[in-house]
Amino acid sequence: MTLVLGVDIGGTDIKLGLVGNEGEIRESGKIPTRPMEGPEAAASRVRRWLEDRAGGAESIVAAGVDCAGLVDGERGFLHVSPNLSGWKNIPLRDVFEHALGVPAIVENDANAAAYGEWAMGAGRGMRNFVCLTLGTGVGGGIIINGALYRGSSGFAGEIGHAVICAGGPLCACGNRGCLEALISAKAIVERAIGMLRAAGESRSTWSDSPTVEALARAAASGDAIAAAAFRETGRWLGISLANIVHILAPEAIAIGGGIAGAGDLILESARATVRDCVMDEAMASVRIVPAELGNRASFIGVSLLALGRLNGRP
Amino acid sequence: MTLVLGVDIGGTDIKLGLVGNEGEIRESGKIPTRPMEGPEAAASRVRRWLEDRAGGAESIVAAGVDCAGLVDGERGFLHVSPNLSGWKNIPLRDVFEHALGVPAIVENDANAAAYGEWAMGAGRGMRNFVCLTLGTGVGGGIIINGALYRGSSGFAGEIGHAVICAGGPLCACGNRGCLEALISAKAIVERAIGMLRAAGESRSTWSDSPTVEALARAAASGDAIAAAAFRETGRWLGISLANIVHILAPEAIAIGGGIAGAGDLILESARATVRDCVMDEAMASVRIVPAELGNRASFIGVSLLALGRLNGRP
Repeated sequence: MTLVLGVDIGGTDIKLGLVGNEGEIRESGKIPTRPMEGPEAAASRVRRWLEDRAGGAESIVAAGVDCAGLVDGERGFLHVSPNLSGWKNIPLRDVFEHALGVPAIVENDANAAAYGEWAMGAGRGMRNFVCLTLGTGVGGGIIINGALYRGSSGFAGEIGHAVICAGGPLCACGNRGCLEALISAKAIVERAIGMLRAAGESRSTWSDSPTVEALARAAASGDAIAAAAFRETGRWLGISLANIVHILAPEAIAIGGGIAGAGDLILESARATVRDCVMDEAMASVRIVPAELGNRASFIGVSLLALGRLNGRP
Repeated sequence: MTLVLGVDIGGTDIKLGLVGNEGEIRESGKIPTRPMEGPEAAASRVRRWLEDRAGGAESIVAAGVDCAGLVDGERGFLHVSPNLSGWKNIPLRDVFEHALGVPAIVENDANAAAYGEWAMGAGRGMRNFVCLTLGTGVGGGIIINGALYRGSSGFAGEIGHAVICAGGPLCACGNRGCLEALISAKAIVERAIGMLRAAGESRSTWSDSPTVEALARAAASGDAIAAAAFRETGRWLGISLANIVHILAPEAIAIGGGIAGAGDLILESARATVRDCVMDEAMASVRIVPAELGNRASFIGVSLLALGRLNGRP
């Protein structure tokens, strides 16, 4: 049986999956990332996990490795990652090929998630598909004509850093009014706090430890301000989705990541905005859907990309 | 010799070209559109032009027809065009096939221009390429992996209607803050008039008949307000171009259309904005270039698309 190891490197944890050639997960788990110890130490810990679970590298034919940030898949380099401080210009493919002894590929985590959702989740069977992953940042991945689209620089799909509100709030990237600056977890919490103040109230059930999760619970219990903060977030998301429809006209756009889990409030509001903003009915047929694979999307996607590379696909 | 007739239908004129299979123009001309007389009358006048110039339809193997608006190439329909009032849900392919007696295709004019520039102009030899056509409206066309990208609805590439300044000026499409609302000919003229007023001046060399052409002449003669209006227009354009780079990462973006002819002021300012806004040096390698084919881009592009269709390409 052909197995590929998917390695999804986040700032805190590395999610791991042993994935079969139909995308089925044979084994999964997670280990700490400890970015300060460096990529070689992380790769060694991945190797030990593999030895403990599956008898070592002999059990796999390839590895796919993904993380947030600017990943040059062609050259196998991680330029820089917002979650992995100190990992700059790392030959990540070499590091993992050396540690595991099998061919490896590296990919941006949002691209990997989009590919996973396209192959096994919300985008199955579609020709053109976009997946946004909402969380601390906003990642995007684009499938065109049934293949992951990376663009000429290798860095396409950065929909989170497309400006939708010029002169708007400052983004981590240095620009103003990027989608990410308007709908990141931090932006949602700040929006809710601002709305609470504007309503002349000083506290709420969620205001002592304001997180997106606390806001989601409050909204579900009828907290009007939490609900309004999610709805406004959905309107900003909807403006970006309408832009994607005008530019790329995919069959569907899937929304994943921790914030998408905050429920239907964001998605419903985003869908209404898309209906309002899109020029023509024919365009409005695009479906805005929840992603289906949860936090397994990236390791599934990067595994299938690694398997495809082994079989000669780009 | 294989010849294709390219028919670029504008609100005032129909531009016509007899194009060879290497994209070379054998004959070109223009005739009035007279949209009120309807598409059949226009197609008959195209037929007469062909008879006068080239001995009739026997001389061509196919025709390509393009116009602004929502064109469904697959079904051969024009849904609606901003320039051709009364032409709604027209089976434009059938109309031209009937009039000319050869296979025809229909395409959006900005898509046709992008394909023409890719095949014969500013995008030659590139894998991923975007072309914007600036004028009364803002058209966009996208080449991906060496093919015109139409998306799943057939209407991809409407970059002029992507919102970059939510809540901004009203666009003809009904939204606010679309690129088109910020950089159309009308927007540039209004910007210059606003700047003139803000400067406390009541008139200038261009203010009696304010057009983009008059502003371009004034800017070339040192008129500071005209120059400032073009530079600000370039900044808005640059925000949109940076978005295209983040989303699509093409090798180049070409800028064509009447407004691009206003000179380097817009392009220089747009390039500076792209350099400021794009996240990473690797992305900033995209080239922002003038289109090369002028107003022949669409009829060349649609001719080559028609020829490709004849040869079995999508």
